[in-house]
Amino acid sequence: MNIEEKLVADATAVMNTVKDLQAASALLGWDQETYMPDGAAEARAEQLATLDTLAHQKLTGNATAEIVEKIRPALNGGTTRTERLMKLFVREYDKASKLPERLVHETSKATALAQESWKKARGASDFKIFRDDLKKLLDLKSEAAECYGYAENKYDALLDLFEPGMSVSHLKPVFSNLAKGTRELLAMVEPVKDRADDSVLYTKFDKNQQLAFAQQISKAIGFNFETGRVDLSAHPFCTSFAPTDVRLTTRVFEDDLRSCLFGLIHETGHGMYEQGFAKELTRTFAADGASMGIHESQSLFWENVIARSEEFWEWGLPILKTYFPEQLGNMTPLDFYKAINTVSPSLIRIEADETTYNMHIILRFELEEALINGTLSVDDVPAAWNDKMQAFLGITPPSDAKGCLQDIHWSFGGFGYFPSYTLGKLYAATLRKCLLRDMPESPDNIRTGNFAPILEWLRTNIHQHGKTMTPDELIRNISGSSLTEQDFLEYAMAKAKRVYDL
Amino acid sequence: MNIEEKLVADATAVMNTVKDLQAASALLGWDQETYMPDGAAEARAEQLATLDTLAHQKLTGNATAEIVEKIRPALNGGTTRTERLMKLFVREYDKASKLPERLVHETSKATALAQESWKKARGASDFKIFRDDLKKLLDLKSEAAECYGYAENKYDALLDLFEPGMSVSHLKPVFSNLAKGTRELLAMVEPVKDRADDSVLYTKFDKNQQLAFAQQISKAIGFNFETGRVDLSAHPFCTSFAPTDVRLTTRVFEDDLRSCLFGLIHETGHGMYEQGFAKELTRTFAADGASMGIHESQSLFWENVIARSEEFWEWGLPILKTYFPEQLGNMTPLDFYKAINTVSPSLIRIEADETTYNMHIILRFELEEALINGTLSVDDVPAAWNDKMQAFLGITPPSDAKGCLQDIHWSFGGFGYFPSYTLGKLYAATLRKCLLRDMPESPDNIRTGNFAPILEWLRTNIHQHGKTMTPDELIRNISGSSLTEQDFLEYAMAKAKRVYDL
Repeated sequence: MNIEEKLVADATAVMNTVKDLQAASALLGWDQETYMPDGAAEARAEQLATLDTLAHQKLTGNATAEIVEKIRPALNGGTTRTERLMKLFVREYDKASKLPERLVHETSKATALAQESWKKARGASDFKIFRDDLKKLLDLKSEAAECYGYAENKYDALLDLFEPGMSVSHLKPVFSNLAKGTRELLAMVEPVKDRADDSVLYTKFDKNQQLAFAQQISKAIGFNFETGRVDLSAHPFCTSFAPTDVRLTTRVFEDDLRSCLFGLIHETGHGMYEQGFAKELTRTFAADGASMGIHESQSLFWENVIARSEEFWEWGLPILKTYFPEQLGNMTPLDFYKAINTVSPSLIRIEADETTYNMHIILRFELEEALINGTLSVDDVPAAWNDKMQAFLGITPPSDAKGCLQDIHWSFGGFGYFPSYTLGKLYAATLRKCLLRDMPESPDNIRTGNFAPILEWLRTNIHQHGKTMTPDELIRNISGSSLTEQDFLEYAMAKAKRVYDL
Repeated sequence: MNIEEKLVADATAVMNTVKDLQAASALLGWDQETYMPDGAAEARAEQLATLDTLAHQKLTGNATAEIVEKIRPALNGGTTRTERLMKLFVREYDKASKLPERLVHETSKATALAQESWKKARGASDFKIFRDDLKKLLDLKSEAAECYGYAENKYDALLDLFEPGMSVSHLKPVFSNLAKGTRELLAMVEPVKDRADDSVLYTKFDKNQQLAFAQQISKAIGFNFETGRVDLSAHPFCTSFAPTDVRLTTRVFEDDLRSCLFGLIHETGHGMYEQGFAKELTRTFAADGASMGIHESQSLFWENVIARSEEFWEWGLPILKTYFPEQLGNMTPLDFYKAINTVSPSLIRIEADETTYNMHIILRFELEEALINGTLSVDDVPAAWNDKMQAFLGITPPSDAKGCLQDIHWSFGGFGYFPSYTLGKLYAATLRKCLLRDMPESPDNIRTGNFAPILEWLRTNIHQHGKTMTPDELIRNISGSSLTEQDFLEYAMAKAKRVYDL
């Protein structure tokens, strides 16, 4: 591969403009969730639409098309960072230009309507209210999948938007083994579930103190507050306007110690990834996570692998006790470790523990795949959801609101997104195994609050590469093999044994 | 004038896109001053440059040029709002298309860097740190003035950006009379300056309480918190992303009761103007102040004419006492009125009383006019500043931080902006005279905290028109004559007599 310098510069200039527009759009989105006055919603929607339209026009316009068609013939085999960046540039151009403008416009309208009807449907716990809009979005996304193209399964085209290179045929056996292993783990825990007590987490904790502790932890594990900050919002999120400007949010409930703390550690994991892209990728399409799954592996690595480990609380509990001496004075690190690691089937995905969580994802994956391929009809969603909840977790939702209407994702047409969460868990467990292989002293480092070597290891193996490598390349480079459920199941089983004295 | 509907729609679509980009840019600017992490400055400068460039391209591109040239022949005499809007559209196109794209881009980048170096320079009280960036901005703005063109004085081209139609030859006699009247007033007050005591304002006032009271006042005089909010920043400002999204900032000093309160009332005046544009002007170039001088007349009207009146504190002091009973328990409204209306030469513009304030402005006007015309060199700024401070107010700054580095304006290249403040004072005094003519019951309304009729009068006479009328048209429509220093001098003299028992 040999692309002349001038072409690289032209492509980079296009990416710079598009990224700056996307950064502005992201800041408008952040502001909307944190500080924007209520009355500004309509004006903000118009501003966002304008920025998104301009970014799309810039990316798919004639000037860009000319650059792309000059680069395309030279695209094969190159593995330098610049060559990978040019491949990515062309891939993003193709993705953006494959959808007819009518479809983009129709989808954006249908999405706005679906979000309204989903809210109503959930409020009334009545799937029928959402049914028609969901059907419309499925049709539009199905059409989009045809536009993108796929080799085997129509759903692959949607999966690929979030996890480049991922396919149904790849996921199915992994998810099947994961479900099987999870069932075994649940059967093991069920008879001894009273051995772990998490009631202390739901007593009363001052909100400001919770926030101060969470920020202290965020800083301790490595979030750079010179190039980032923390605010409050209704739902925690991480957004980034540049590697030097990363914003985290969290929320605080007085009667739940987990939400603020683990929410912020989770977003800190995302945020440290965003802060860690190689400097030369700034303002290019590669200043981004390799995939949603890899992004989620970073948040879950810090939230679960690190901050739900026993050694973490050998270091952290004495600090936490300085904030809440009355509530936690008598606890040992092992008590606290058990409290934050209980395993139990439950109805709501976002409240699930790290093990049963995957069952919620596999359920959604199976439904989405069937809906997109037309083997499940929209009308049958509530029944299919409830059947699968029974099959996977042995419980049946008492209402659609606590069943198939609980998540916002379908209302914005995010089919193909859910698997990212479980991919993140599987990648995180593999990263843990490799970290212990490369740096067996890591548990001792955690015990002394020395997180820098771990962050450095992630920077080297994951962060710096941004989106220049695919998820599979990253994971193969580190572990020597592709996606597997084994590392997660071993990790979860070992943890369950420790938590439940098995 | 007869412009076909299709053309109006096309022109409006261009304005919508440009306004949305400007709104995004304004939000990035607001964020930079309120919440942005320090490390993000460089990325933010690039994002702002991209947005400004795109807005400029959209406004001056071929597609817009075609629309403009179809509208231009029909432009004369029309006075409906649509016709005025189309005139404004063409005027903004002409203004923007006179600057080469390179100059716009370079200015935007230089501005971002200059703001950082100004902050450092002020912190270190060392003009040299800011010197090169100031020189660069002066060169760029001087080049811009040549591009815009002017009849008599290069500085007129810059003045016109902030006050359409204003010129050096127009301002000089007004400023000269104003300086003369101010010297007379100062001479009158000097022998009796001990008759008013403001020491109570500089005792100790809890910051949170100050902020709460200031926000209560902001709300009471009419700022709509459904479509606006207040944050803290180093330097108070008002910015707007839509009439439904107006942001005010203030700052709080524990040992100065004035700064937070009058700062916020000032910005509230700006903010209510922004919230008051006619709804049909939204997302057009007319959703803007008629000029900076008119904008400033709104902030100063509320800050000085209303909130520094004796009747205002007959209503407000009892409320303020509930916040600070210990500090203010013994004060009468007249005591408080005197305390907040003392007249005395001082170093810092934004801390100056409303009368000597104009001297600070005339000083800056004279320096800027000389810098832009090359009759003063950048290196001589600190000395020239100090000389003029001595000549106008009889005092000499002890440091650059308290002299030529005190204001942010030059760091964003705002040459031509300063006169707006004094124009605002002169307009505000004229508005006061006209308000009392139209609604002589206004002082009684103020005494009972009934500000709605006054705001309504401003909405009708000023706010709703946005930028569809020129400053001169607005002031002539209300008062029957053009800019004058007389109303202000009469108002200031009457106030001084009351404050100093003369």
